[in-house]
Amino acid sequence: MTRLTADRLDELHRGVLMLVAEHGYEKVTMDRIAEVTRSSKATLYRQWGSKLDLVVDALGSSASIDEEPPDTGTLGTDLHELVDRGLRNRAQMSYQNDLIAALMHAVKASPELGAALREQILASIRSTLGSVLDRATDRGEVDADWTGREHLVTAFIAPFVLHDLVSGTEPDADFLHSWVDIVLLPALTVR
Amino acid sequence: MTRLTADRLDELHRGVLMLVAEHGYEKVTMDRIAEVTRSSKATLYRQWGSKLDLVVDALGSSASIDEEPPDTGTLGTDLHELVDRGLRNRAQMSYQNDLIAALMHAVKASPELGAALREQILASIRSTLGSVLDRATDRGEVDADWTGREHLVTAFIAPFVLHDLVSGTEPDADFLHSWVDIVLLPALTVR
Repeated sequence: MTRLTADRLDELHRGVLMLVAEHGYEKVTMDRIAEVTRSSKATLYRQWGSKLDLVVDALGSSASIDEEPPDTGTLGTDLHELVDRGLRNRAQMSYQNDLIAALMHAVKASPELGAALREQILASIRSTLGSVLDRATDRGEVDADWTGREHLVTAFIAPFVLHDLVSGTEPDADFLHSWVDIVLLPALTVR
Repeated sequence: MTRLTADRLDELHRGVLMLVAEHGYEKVTMDRIAEVTRSSKATLYRQWGSKLDLVVDALGSSASIDEEPPDTGTLGTDLHELVDRGLRNRAQMSYQNDLIAALMHAVKASPELGAALREQILASIRSTLGSVLDRATDRGEVDADWTGREHLVTAFIAPFVLHDLVSGTEPDADFLHSWVDIVLLPALTVR
């Protein structure tokens, strides 16, 4: 069996995800992946067995941004800082949104693909929001028995992922910051 | 030019949207559309020019549910009623979610497709939520100068569209109703 070097594997994973983000999961073929990543189809199939396995593997090993959760002293400023990080890194944000959009339909047919996407892209958002929420709860800003933890991930990513669909444009800084003030903080904070 | 009867056009539109909802926009070909709708490709191209034109036309003419906005007396009960309508009509809801997921990536490349989707599927949600909000504002439940109207459509559809992606399952009644109580109502109601 042909062994790929770590660098070569990394390059191949990136190539696969960029193809998927650009064309949508369903449209991408192993032929096209082989062409763009300058691999032989035989090698791809020997290593991964199927397009699904290859994309799941690529999702699982793509580097996530490993930043510390913000700790600015209040829940509001922490959430605004998270929005600012997204805006500072628009290219990465926009790429992740493309990838989510490209996979949204395919995950309905493939639980395995959905699990890989959740682990790769959503796990770090979930854990970051969890830390921010824990500290806010310790400070008494959020009720200790607030039951919306499961809702928060969806509520936080919604404007990033859905704005284009709902309004036909990428969300701008004003919209994303007002989302924190108008939607997230009223739901989270003790009255 | 071959003229299609209204019934035949309707059947063709439905066939196109079901193909897209099932396989994703990018994957569906005019060949497959011709096969499934028992049309000749020549007829399809003569009538619509491209897959994009055909899908846009199908989206624009597909029947939307034309129910009156709920008017149960309070903002909370109106929003819960909207969730119940979605749940009563799970097949329609699930089909619309499939269609949204199937088109989410394609709309990034095609503003025309995005506009058709917004007009077809989102316009009726936007107008229903607008009526509910107007009445709640008249009753003093929502501040007259509340600035989140643009946010509300996104916040309302988020659990329907994103739950599968975030959690790997379709949202159940408990989750959708708790979304109204935990996320929507705190954002909307006067403190």
